[in-house]
Amino acid sequence: MTSSPDHKRARTTDSSPPYLLHYWPTIPGRAEPIRLCFEASSTPYTDVTNSNPDSGMKTLMSLISSSSDAPPPKIPHFAPPILQHGDLYLSQLPNILLYLGPRLGLVPSDDANAIYRINQLTLTALDGFSNEAHETHHPIAVGDYYENQKDAAIKRANDYTHNRLPKFLGHFEQVLKQNQGGEYLYGGQLTYADLVLFQGLDGVSFAFPNAVKKLREGGEYRRVWDLYERVKGLDNVKAYLESERRLGYSSGIWRHYDELDES
Amino acid sequence: MTSSPDHKRARTTDSSPPYLLHYWPTIPGRAEPIRLCFEASSTPYTDVTNSNPDSGMKTLMSLISSSSDAPPPKIPHFAPPILQHGDLYLSQLPNILLYLGPRLGLVPSDDANAIYRINQLTLTALDGFSNEAHETHHPIAVGDYYENQKDAAIKRANDYTHNRLPKFLGHFEQVLKQNQGGEYLYGGQLTYADLVLFQGLDGVSFAFPNAVKKLREGGEYRRVWDLYERVKGLDNVKAYLESERRLGYSSGIWRHYDELDES
Repeated sequence: MTSSPDHKRARTTDSSPPYLLHYWPTIPGRAEPIRLCFEASSTPYTDVTNSNPDSGMKTLMSLISSSSDAPPPKIPHFAPPILQHGDLYLSQLPNILLYLGPRLGLVPSDDANAIYRINQLTLTALDGFSNEAHETHHPIAVGDYYENQKDAAIKRANDYTHNRLPKFLGHFEQVLKQNQGGEYLYGGQLTYADLVLFQGLDGVSFAFPNAVKKLREGGEYRRVWDLYERVKGLDNVKAYLESERRLGYSSGIWRHYDELDES
Repeated sequence: MTSSPDHKRARTTDSSPPYLLHYWPTIPGRAEPIRLCFEASSTPYTDVTNSNPDSGMKTLMSLISSSSDAPPPKIPHFAPPILQHGDLYLSQLPNILLYLGPRLGLVPSDDANAIYRINQLTLTALDGFSNEAHETHHPIAVGDYYENQKDAAIKRANDYTHNRLPKFLGHFEQVLKQNQGGEYLYGGQLTYADLVLFQGLDGVSFAFPNAVKKLREGGEYRRVWDLYERVKGLDNVKAYLESERRLGYSSGIWRHYDELDES
């Protein structure tokens, strides 16, 4: 036993405990990159709250409860998503991906530093297309209504679509450029960083359709959007996106408000 | 060779390449938890830009440049801090800590899941006391002056000191409570998560002295502040904090503006 994500661990077999995903129901949100990892690698999993709304929500609330009689996990969880695998409960999206990546074959197995490279790309993609996208509609208080912070949101979204989004797109374009022909972000194979980037791009395309359309048509980030289409077209991903398991965007991280998009 | 952070790897010896830290000079910022890891474990390192301002800045800028002739690292870096260790260049603070933790003895070596537990605690501490603290003075545009977003900053800081800060403190109080007497966040030993939490608490104490004073005096988060004092009093940490290597707070993540603090 080591304390490490071991890339040589066998892919999930019948003897592996089931993977259970606990997250707010009905939205893609911060659980979506996890779902994409399971789906892209054909790994069975249970999306608990969406499968069993009543009991699932009860379990979820107990896992993030700060009551002193909280169940098995010895570390309380600040927020979902939470992955349950046997006796282990993990939270924090990049942390869950770090755990799953090698186990699901989404990290190259012949490269000692791959896990750090992929974790780095993942953290940057989450910053750029997920965390900062959320800030656009909640720049003042995450616990307050959008309508109460709309003026600030319009300003923040303007900065996001004009400055931050192009900067993050440019970063990933450069990553792909330095790959010199590689079809994926790292190591010449699909990794979980590609799935995280795909989801972020898909989310901002929903939230800011006009701004993203202009950025795509400019042609400056061709490699990024080629990667987006490549991931979208993978057999397992395509089947998932067309299934009922893929939840629609609504009031989560990626929201569409006309006034936050470019005109 | 594995793709994993191996906790059994020997502590740095004379045969290990030197550790070089690249970050904006003169501020603690997102490099500070890394410095604390080196200092707490008595690991030699070079703080490049602070040691050699001119050549150090030139190197730093080349590492985050998006020019196509960028040097060795094959993945461009979005932003510092960047750790250089032999041929490996890594960015993203939690990623650098993930790499260093097991190598510096800051992760328990007898626990298969320790690395994920500590990474989880680290990500939450960075969210609560570093990332969200930065948002308080730049809620609209990271690239614009504070003065141009002061009104929104006052509102965001108000939400931070009244809602978010207590929520994150409560989370870590609960983590320590469920430890049932453990002196550190995880595994009964100093880990890098403790150093990250210490730095975050120290930073917000500088930024929001009045708000933090009230939260400390309320007594609700006694275990958290006991941990803060415990880390602060460790011989190596104490010596570092009293040295010239510990940089003062100024215009980085943790800034003090009277109008953002409670009165």
